[in-house]
Amino acid sequence: IALRPRESDYPMVSVDEALKTVLQYANQGGTHRRNFKDALGFVLAEDVFSQEPLPPFPASIKDGYAVIVADGTGRRRVLGDSTAGVHSLCEVLPGCCVRVSTGAVVPPGANAVVQVEDTALLKDADSGRAELEVMIMKAPVLNQDIRPIGSDIQQNEKVLSAGMCLGPSEIGLLATVGVTQVLCYTKPTVGVMSTGNELVEPGQKLSRGKIRDSNRSTLLACLREQGIPTVDLGIARDNADALLSQILEALDQVDVIVTSGGVSMGEKDLVKDVLRIDLNAMIRFARVFMKPGKPTTFTTLSHNGKSKLFFGLPGNPVSALVTCNLYVLPAIRKMSGFAKFQSTVIKAKLASAITLDPRPEYHRCILSWGEDGLALAESTGCNQMSSRLLSVRSSNALLMLPPKTDEQQVLTAGQMVDAMVLGTVI
Amino acid sequence: IALRPRESDYPMVSVDEALKTVLQYANQGGTHRRNFKDALGFVLAEDVFSQEPLPPFPASIKDGYAVIVADGTGRRRVLGDSTAGVHSLCEVLPGCCVRVSTGAVVPPGANAVVQVEDTALLKDADSGRAELEVMIMKAPVLNQDIRPIGSDIQQNEKVLSAGMCLGPSEIGLLATVGVTQVLCYTKPTVGVMSTGNELVEPGQKLSRGKIRDSNRSTLLACLREQGIPTVDLGIARDNADALLSQILEALDQVDVIVTSGGVSMGEKDLVKDVLRIDLNAMIRFARVFMKPGKPTTFTTLSHNGKSKLFFGLPGNPVSALVTCNLYVLPAIRKMSGFAKFQSTVIKAKLASAITLDPRPEYHRCILSWGEDGLALAESTGCNQMSSRLLSVRSSNALLMLPPKTDEQQVLTAGQMVDAMVLGTVI
Ligand SMILES: [Mg+2]
Ligand SMILES: [Mg+2]
Repeated sequence: IALRPRESDYPMVSVDEALKTVLQYANQGGTHRRNFKDALGFVLAEDVFSQEPLPPFPASIKDGYAVIVADGTGRRRVLGDSTAGVHSLCEVLPGCCVRVSTGAVVPPGANAVVQVEDTALLKDADSGRAELEVMIMKAPVLNQDIRPIGSDIQQNEKVLSAGMCLGPSEIGLLATVGVTQVLCYTKPTVGVMSTGNELVEPGQKLSRGKIRDSNRSTLLACLREQGIPTVDLGIARDNADALLSQILEALDQVDVIVTSGGVSMGEKDLVKDVLRIDLNAMIRFARVFMKPGKPTTFTTLSHNGKSKLFFGLPGNPVSALVTCNLYVLPAIRKMSGFAKFQSTVIKAKLASAITLDPRPEYHRCILSWGEDGLALAESTGCNQMSSRLLSVRSSNALLMLPPKTDEQQVLTAGQMVDAMVLGTVI
Repeated sequence: IALRPRESDYPMVSVDEALKTVLQYANQGGTHRRNFKDALGFVLAEDVFSQEPLPPFPASIKDGYAVIVADGTGRRRVLGDSTAGVHSLCEVLPGCCVRVSTGAVVPPGANAVVQVEDTALLKDADSGRAELEVMIMKAPVLNQDIRPIGSDIQQNEKVLSAGMCLGPSEIGLLATVGVTQVLCYTKPTVGVMSTGNELVEPGQKLSRGKIRDSNRSTLLACLREQGIPTVDLGIARDNADALLSQILEALDQVDVIVTSGGVSMGEKDLVKDVLRIDLNAMIRFARVFMKPGKPTTFTTLSHNGKSKLFFGLPGNPVSALVTCNLYVLPAIRKMSGFAKFQSTVIKAKLASAITLDPRPEYHRCILSWGEDGLALAESTGCNQMSSRLLSVRSSNALLMLPPKTDEQQVLTAGQMVDAMVLGTVI
């Protein structure tokens, strides 16, 4: 311990380099077929085509009467009806019409639909139960209120492309074209572990020197919110044997391990050594020029022939959440097949002045939109000490503040700054 | 059928009136206690306080040495160490120091921490296994690198307020303060039913006049994406008996029913009549001045002494999804206890000109952000026919276009328009 290095051996990398490195090793792991109903939030791994045209028949857009345009306005004999889903054999003859409902087949012979609002009853029978004659009050135009065959989707048309994320509309399109088993990219399973002798479970009482573990719950929720399959890997104690056995067990279960704590320069910060020495992992970076999150560590390793990613996030709660958003989520989105895996960054107007730090700073804020169309970014609480998790509550973005320079020490209210939208990519 | 009304009896209401009506009947239904790990996306129904201060002890922010400020720079005898989570009995005496790790208890007697980077080893023993003396190279300042007791959270401080939505940070705060069972607002269970003789299940082949039911999958996905508990109520055929028995069965299972189809003026549009006549429901509105979505119907009813909401959405797929976003989601968010239940509306710049409709139009678009900080709205496809579900894919907002006036028939590229962010409220 006495001879420990007094400064970190690991080179300091920039946020951009760190992210580039992470993404370089975050590779898509495979595909599988799943039921379209359970495919929400997955990325398509195949193009999807329509086997049939939509509509598969000329369909009425209105409730009304199928008519022949050349007949113009005037009286029409009602030959029968065609309602949605009912196979009708009626054919429309000159001077006649067929009552149609929205979505029904427009019968052969007809070339327009006149909506019921533009008609009047002339003759009925059976005490109003049957229509015999109606008046067409407005001259129809060719193909009026008819959706021709294939006007929405043509036969063999590509309706969805590989790489699209399946949202509600896409799930509906799969239903429409009858593709109920769909090839999707497999999402990685992510295990979350906390490290530290000081940590107790949230349900436990505190004894001297202890605090409750919050990082694991926060990080698991952050991943689950994104639809990422997770495994709770518990708390590992600060000794090499415990860490090693817990990591080894985890590697059997998950593709990605996210830990918090144990990556600084303290005598109990053993994560990097266990990875490097015991697990033969490649430490890709272990220090990043950013605030918070300087000790963020990223390593890759091989376990039973499979490559695994290991994110060693700082133990400080805000640092852990910020670095999870900055590095872990984009990596997992890329591994899940997302074409757009980077978080959305928008320009926001500062609500109040902010003093810059020598490091690029990621500053929690709440975005709202004003009449001028610009996003307004309000800092969440003035205490931006990185351990103050309270300040993250209800924030929906991270301000990406540039490092202080001789020319620019402070950003003033109204200045435009980049803001990374947290959680959902909009 | 002959004597049916040729125009709807129901008055046309504005979108604002319709939404106001829906929200008036969308009431919060109760609370329950749930495990904090399963509370992501729920709204807190109680204030949460911290029983203990955080940190519960003076904690070191750095790996370094706990010292006495008055000693200034110079040699210090190392009395021992204090690592995180380990109860140490060491006391710091003048001229001495105790080695501390990040998060560890700062021992009694010390009033500052000097980070390891600002120290040098002077004397070790046991081949470097023990430190005997170090040099403090930089004079410490009072309380430097110490988090005092309660500096993050004070004892009995309110850390979360009733009405807050529980995101990852809030889940972490619950863990921190040890509140593992938390009172949340109960979310309503929402059943989704499609209506129509023309509909077949997505896995089925099409016969003449049939199409596959996509609305149910789309609406279920739209609700599930928001974390709303759903029940798939299947397809109801276009006859009053089938509709009635299927709705009655649904009312035993769910708080809210969302149907699509069967609300226009066709002879098979029976939903309103079944609700009004057979179920004694109050039809709150049945026509809205909007495009798409004119026949949107909202009713309230009582079933076994419980009040239920019924949304009869139009059968057209785009109409169903648009009206679900406009009416159903805000209602369910309000019932789930959200303080902010309305969708986020932002100002966006039109990427290209749009011709206005006589009705207020809800127009699918994709928002992106440019260097000027303004959201740019691109229409998704030029075919905006309301049945064209294809155009919704990958859209992330609805443009809220004003109705056409004599003065304004077209919106030009670059004009600012309201856009409702779809899905997640940011
Ligand atoms: Mg630690
Ligand atoms: Mg129908």
